[in-house]
Amino acid sequence: MSKNQKLKIIPLGGLETIGMNITAFEYGDSIIVVDCGLAFPEDDMLGIDLVIPDVTYLKDNIERVKGFVITHGHEDHIGALPFVIGDVNVPIYTTALTMALIEHKLREHDLLDTTKRYVVKHGDIVELGAFKVEFIKTNHSIQDASALAIFSPAGTVVHTGDFKVDYTPVYGDAIDLQRLAEIGKSGVLALMSDSTNAEEEGFTMSEKTVGNALVGIFSEYQDTRLIIATFASNVDRVQQIINIAHKFGRKVVVQGRSMVNVIGIASEMGYIRIPYDTIIDPAELDEYPEEQTVIITTGSQGEAMAGLSRMADGTHRVIHIKPTDTVVFSSNPIPGNEKAVSNIINALSARHANIIFQDVHVSGHARREELKLIYSLVHPQYALPVHGEYRHLRANAQVAVQLGIPKDHIMIMHSGDVLEINQDGAEVVDQVQARPILVDGTRIGDVSKDVMRDRKQLAQDGVVVAVIPIDMKERRMTAAPKINSRGFVFLTGDDTLIEEACETLKKTVERKLSDDKVSKSKLKESVRSTLINFMLQETGRKPLVMPILLDVADDSEED
Amino acid sequence: MSKNQKLKIIPLGGLETIGMNITAFEYGDSIIVVDCGLAFPEDDMLGIDLVIPDVTYLKDNIERVKGFVITHGHEDHIGALPFVIGDVNVPIYTTALTMALIEHKLREHDLLDTTKRYVVKHGDIVELGAFKVEFIKTNHSIQDASALAIFSPAGTVVHTGDFKVDYTPVYGDAIDLQRLAEIGKSGVLALMSDSTNAEEEGFTMSEKTVGNALVGIFSEYQDTRLIIATFASNVDRVQQIINIAHKFGRKVVVQGRSMVNVIGIASEMGYIRIPYDTIIDPAELDEYPEEQTVIITTGSQGEAMAGLSRMADGTHRVIHIKPTDTVVFSSNPIPGNEKAVSNIINALSARHANIIFQDVHVSGHARREELKLIYSLVHPQYALPVHGEYRHLRANAQVAVQLGIPKDHIMIMHSGDVLEINQDGAEVVDQVQARPILVDGTRIGDVSKDVMRDRKQLAQDGVVVAVIPIDMKERRMTAAPKINSRGFVFLTGDDTLIEEACETLKKTVERKLSDDKVSKSKLKESVRSTLINFMLQETGRKPLVMPILLDVADDSEED
Repeated sequence: MSKNQKLKIIPLGGLETIGMNITAFEYGDSIIVVDCGLAFPEDDMLGIDLVIPDVTYLKDNIERVKGFVITHGHEDHIGALPFVIGDVNVPIYTTALTMALIEHKLREHDLLDTTKRYVVKHGDIVELGAFKVEFIKTNHSIQDASALAIFSPAGTVVHTGDFKVDYTPVYGDAIDLQRLAEIGKSGVLALMSDSTNAEEEGFTMSEKTVGNALVGIFSEYQDTRLIIATFASNVDRVQQIINIAHKFGRKVVVQGRSMVNVIGIASEMGYIRIPYDTIIDPAELDEYPEEQTVIITTGSQGEAMAGLSRMADGTHRVIHIKPTDTVVFSSNPIPGNEKAVSNIINALSARHANIIFQDVHVSGHARREELKLIYSLVHPQYALPVHGEYRHLRANAQVAVQLGIPKDHIMIMHSGDVLEINQDGAEVVDQVQARPILVDGTRIGDVSKDVMRDRKQLAQDGVVVAVIPIDMKERRMTAAPKINSRGFVFLTGDDTLIEEACETLKKTVERKLSDDKVSKSKLKESVRSTLINFMLQETGRKPLVMPILLDVADDSEED
Repeated sequence: MSKNQKLKIIPLGGLETIGMNITAFEYGDSIIVVDCGLAFPEDDMLGIDLVIPDVTYLKDNIERVKGFVITHGHEDHIGALPFVIGDVNVPIYTTALTMALIEHKLREHDLLDTTKRYVVKHGDIVELGAFKVEFIKTNHSIQDASALAIFSPAGTVVHTGDFKVDYTPVYGDAIDLQRLAEIGKSGVLALMSDSTNAEEEGFTMSEKTVGNALVGIFSEYQDTRLIIATFASNVDRVQQIINIAHKFGRKVVVQGRSMVNVIGIASEMGYIRIPYDTIIDPAELDEYPEEQTVIITTGSQGEAMAGLSRMADGTHRVIHIKPTDTVVFSSNPIPGNEKAVSNIINALSARHANIIFQDVHVSGHARREELKLIYSLVHPQYALPVHGEYRHLRANAQVAVQLGIPKDHIMIMHSGDVLEINQDGAEVVDQVQARPILVDGTRIGDVSKDVMRDRKQLAQDGVVVAVIPIDMKERRMTAAPKINSRGFVFLTGDDTLIEEACETLKKTVERKLSDDKVSKSKLKESVRSTLINFMLQETGRKPLVMPILLDVADDSEED
């Protein structure tokens, strides 16, 4: 292997959008993959459950892929593993809590036994072919988050993962700034850093400050039941709520499947410590005065099926919101969820609950001053902003410019780009396939652009189906056309709209059939355009029209 | 009329949601209607263009309705007039700019000649049956906004309309606090005040402060073209941009149909003053150096078809975003539009434009300190918060409590409530019909709950149509079932899914037909449930299934 050989960095997702983080690093015959996350569907991805990355490149080079190294246990970094590990069956390397969360997923997909897994500690170095990967302690809104130092013959890349700088974390140590500095001192080719909050000035506050805010709330509302909504995966937040509840002599009920699940895993592994007899079963709530209870729940983002939504709309089995309740949002709305959160606040307001939704949350992502600190410690030759939409990547790039990195050493990449980089330079030399794959139901990848486009039209104006019974041999209709619709207009029994449409269609079909040369597909197209025009004229709407020719003379049909 | 007769206040919309403001006031044989606005559809109102209020109560009592009094010219206060004025054809009373905007709408709907209109000035008092209505100058993000003092034998109601307190407005006078105080001094039964910003502490800044921010931007970016996006109806904002552009020697191009329209109306009427030779045609842009031009555009809310969106996605006819452009959002995202605005910012970032989206906007709505001021001046016996979602109404109610209004004198109403009020008390005594009416295309009101529910399902998983040709007399299928789908899964030519579904269906239909008593509707229901179960099992999705029985023995069919 020549010393001048280049390192390839190939993001297969995670740029252009928040979520679906996955990046391949390639040197000679070695490929390693950092993270394997999913994304949640955009508003215009109708009916889609999840979005996962396209790993065709990894499948095509499977014999060179040495393993997955995972930075932390959030869905946007681990969520695609169960969908990918079958095809890209290589070992997974990560920290203990992260691995436990991955194992929970693999178990659900019955993939645990077929997946090799290695738990590492911060400070550990894993050898994967030409690469050595060191796991470095960071802070984030979930424990056991790591930055990675990826050592290759072409140079060292530091990848921060999602991170913030918390000098006073609730659990465990602060981010290992000394080690980052040490690696920086020894020379770093490129820094890939978290852009999520790169537009925000200043420093993200410590998780401890949320504890102070919560103590204030517990002190002020000693006479009311407290319902606190937060992220299921934010173990430190939950730990703080439990500690404060214990101090104030309150029992804690945990609501929401994902919350119960994460707290279960974290407490089994010792990442969360629950004082004796603090957590009670929802069924036991009745046994305690309301003001001696706290309910920790999912649904802080307004998710329709989560605990808080069900409380707000009155469908929760156990917990019914009362005017004497105080509901605390220990969270901010993730962009796109604002309206859903506001709807919940309205529904809770209508039940006369007291609602606190400001200043009881801090982000898990670094702001500009933290990014400056990391750039200064790591002192990379190249800056490759990651984790964020384009606006965030660009804001991170602006920070890099301020820190003196030359503009031509700052690359905003796109998913699928193949970046070749070493001491001599960096350049995008190729593209690999990296279109996001839409997961809808159990059949993956069979939602095409056409399907999406149809769903959009169906959502707007519904569907009109016209069945035309014909005898193509004799060139005649064997019965009147039948028109049915759904999601189009409200049809009363005596609606003349459909009758008139039938008449119009009849004439069109008769005229077309009188032309000896007309094919079935031509006839179908006429039915379609006749109906679309008729409906547009009569209703101002453009439903999706499905013409179905039923040829009594022939069972087969070109569709 | 007895002195003890009560005033009825009947909001027909505008509570529970932002938009669709319309409130009837009724005393004896007189009804007046304050505002007649529309709402924009919620996310779950698929395919809906607009939402308008249900005015059945006004139609049923049309002989008593004396007129519409309109507070200002925003869509949520005037937008439903063209849909309502045909049925409720009573005179409209409002200020000059507001009337001009209404007339523009009526003209488009060919309703101008049949609608009586009376332009009033601030300070004017209009007599409408038992009511006298005084128009009082306020400040808002459009000129000619009014509060209303509604004098009735049962007492005086002050309705603020949308308002803020701007001591230094860009055009015209500050809100007439003296007159509000005078009316308050003489005794006010109830205050209905704008709740939009009632959750926000402090005072909304003056429109003038935006001018200062804009001067800063013009000074800093003297070398680049400026593209400034704001609300079409914010005439004062546009005036400030034009003035500053003129001062900095820049030509102004106006983009977006609604912007051109409002500026045209406002400038014809003297509400906006355009310095000679400042506004140029888009076609003339080439004749000036870029840094001597400003483009004012619609699309600040990320609206898909507006000027800024088309610039961002590269489809604008004339204006192409360059790395040398500075794009300014002189607006904040309206709740629910955050993601759309962010998408535009990303698209503009990807074209390397410089983007400024913070601190170049002030709201047109009063915050808590302004509400306190108005409560103090008007000193009402009753507080009836209006304009806002439930959370906002409640925040306004909290302000009223702080100002010493007894809790049982603060009423959070619902659309359709009939409030009876006079010196002796206030009580909701009845309900009138007030369900929002969905406008989709040209046929109004024919989108039912069923249609909405179907659209939701169609959007999620598409549609599967099964046509079963049968002979019910002979109780047999005359040909194999035909299954077509759209928006469901991507079907390749050799997809076995549909073939297997056909086979399954065949068996079901044959089995059912062998039962002599099975009706067509029973048969149809079996087809539906068989297909739903089959598809759910095979794909994990639940498409809308449309079974169509085509009976060769009988042309009619129960549907």
